Amino acid sequence: MNNIIFLERGEIETFLPGERLAEAKLLMEPYVLIDPEEIADEGAWLQFLEENNPKIIFSGWAMEALPNHVFDLAPNLKYVCYLTGTIRSVVPRSLIENGLLVTNWGSSISRTISECALLLVLGCVRRVSYWTQKMHSEGAWNDGSETHSLFGKRIGIHGFGMIARELIPLIRPFTDRISAFSPGVPQSIFDEFEVSQAGSLEALFSENDVIVELEALTDETKRIVDEKLLRTIPANGVFVNVGRGAVVDEAALARVAKEGRIQIGLDVYEAEPLPKGSPLRGLDNVLLLPHVGGPTTDRRVDAGDHALRNLRSYRSGNELKGVFNLEVYDRST
Amino acid sequence: MNNIIFLERGEIETFLPGERLAEAKLLMEPYVLIDPEEIADEGAWLQFLEENNPKIIFSGWAMEALPNHVFDLAPNLKYVCYLTGTIRSVVPRSLIENGLLVTNWGSSISRTISECALLLVLGCVRRVSYWTQKMHSEGAWNDGSETHSLFGKRIGIHGFGMIARELIPLIRPFTDRISAFSPGVPQSIFDEFEVSQAGSLEALFSENDVIVELEALTDETKRIVDEKLLRTIPANGVFVNVGRGAVVDEAALARVAKEGRIQIGLDVYEAEPLPKGSPLRGLDNVLLLPHVGGPTTDRRVDAGDHALRNLRSYRSGNELKGVFNLEVYDRST
Repeated sequence: MNNIIFLERGEIETFLPGERLAEAKLLMEPYVLIDPEEIADEGAWLQFLEENNPKIIFSGWAMEALPNHVFDLAPNLKYVCYLTGTIRSVVPRSLIENGLLVTNWGSSISRTISECALLLVLGCVRRVSYWTQKMHSEGAWNDGSETHSLFGKRIGIHGFGMIARELIPLIRPFTDRISAFSPGVPQSIFDEFEVSQAGSLEALFSENDVIVELEALTDETKRIVDEKLLRTIPANGVFVNVGRGAVVDEAALARVAKEGRIQIGLDVYEAEPLPKGSPLRGLDNVLLLPHVGGPTTDRRVDAGDHALRNLRSYRSGNELKGVFNLEVYDRST
Repeated sequence: MNNIIFLERGEIETFLPGERLAEAKLLMEPYVLIDPEEIADEGAWLQFLEENNPKIIFSGWAMEALPNHVFDLAPNLKYVCYLTGTIRSVVPRSLIENGLLVTNWGSSISRTISECALLLVLGCVRRVSYWTQKMHSEGAWNDGSETHSLFGKRIGIHGFGMIARELIPLIRPFTDRISAFSPGVPQSIFDEFEVSQAGSLEALFSENDVIVELEALTDETKRIVDEKLLRTIPANGVFVNVGRGAVVDEAALARVAKEGRIQIGLDVYEAEPLPKGSPLRGLDNVLLLPHVGGPTTDRRVDAGDHALRNLRSYRSGNELKGVFNLEVYDRST
């Protein structure tokens, strides 16, 4: 029996710099470390699993999918410690049902996404997309058109999970007028963060100057942010999405964007990569980032530390942080 | 005798919305309110001064210059309440020497400039100029190139006046590693803001990941940020200037920028408007804003409130905030 460390060189360098790889090896004993490039295809992967019959797999973006019948090949498999985000494409739901422990980077990267949200909000009120395009391409200077500040603005957050909670201390220096709408989050959490609850999604959008979209994607929330809702954002208002692209009706968003009445900042999209011909491109009231919310390259180490803590807990029989149960699995990407 | 309110309609609308103009009128009694457009030339302005012999002038960007011999024309003149920033082009030094009280927007707008500094810093670490240009003009998507976060970074601030002090609470949620270099600022101020002092300007630049330029412009600081200093900023570091353009050797900055080794964010320049042919334009590691640091349109009201407080204090014989003495005058633009 060998546990499997299945990581690319680039992942090791950025997620596990310094002494971290050495500690990971100790925690994975007995282990085999293999570069994903050495596994030619699915057949080779399944054979490799069977040969090593691991208890733990430590992997990341290059993870090969586990088959539904993985326990036939690797009956000892108990825990997949996944360094990065998306697990649904590599771990079938049935394995969670059958008790496989799975963790990913969990909330260790939330604060970098919150930081991205603040950047997009500040960039929208100052119209950074406009100035960047005009100043670099058109030799422009200040034309006297309006710019805004975040100070004193009303901020409404759709969703109140970890990223939203990490966002609060970043925006608090600018304003105390913060509200959120997130059905299912208990009142005590809003109280803890001193955030008021909007009575409805409609109230959240129409009664704030800045909307930050952070709601989880479910069947209920898919395209819940529709054209009608977007049109209730006050003039000169801001709509920022750093959560899930598909929560928004993107075609409607593009129509609203084109009118120029509000500023829009996006890091996530319905389809990624964002199509070259997307109508969101080329608009000077839309600030676009290519899903770089988090973790930034320099903060991948936070996810590495999070994984090491979980591997340590697993070895010592303590509880893991952020284990995927079926509910979390179904809400994840 | 009539006091003079000499403001453009646009200034009145944005600096003195709501009840503020009415209060200003009360505080300026007896007053004459005139739109600067109605004063044809310098001769008309001097005649207008002589006719009204004001004690107080309340003005802003459209202020006509006061002549050195203004007390011959308006012997009662005691106080110029200036709504906006630059006073050196409208109030000769000799009038300050002769006891004329002058106030401008003082530190009422500092926080919006601090906000702009944070925006440029966040924009630089995430390479917003790069992504904005690529995504809007070239149909680009995430190419896997590095992005950074502000969390845990070392921040060095050159200058520690009001804007720097307002910046501290905005960056504190990201990092505690904040130092500054500002000769003449007492240790007690650094202690109050829990900021450490760099031993030299060289140490500040070479030992931080992010440099925020906020030093006042004097004969000693003109172009003090030279090529040698800029080259000591660590690779992937950030240089942001929201203070005075001429503190930096801009030709040197453009040469360093072109190499792409650091990210640069600028709101101020040696010559403004920034020349169309500036080598800073078109670089994807340079984020450019056209001197929109502060106040933003929506926060001009803070400068209006500041002016009203000073007019109120003047009427009631209390001390004014931010009166220009000769030292402040000489350091101002």
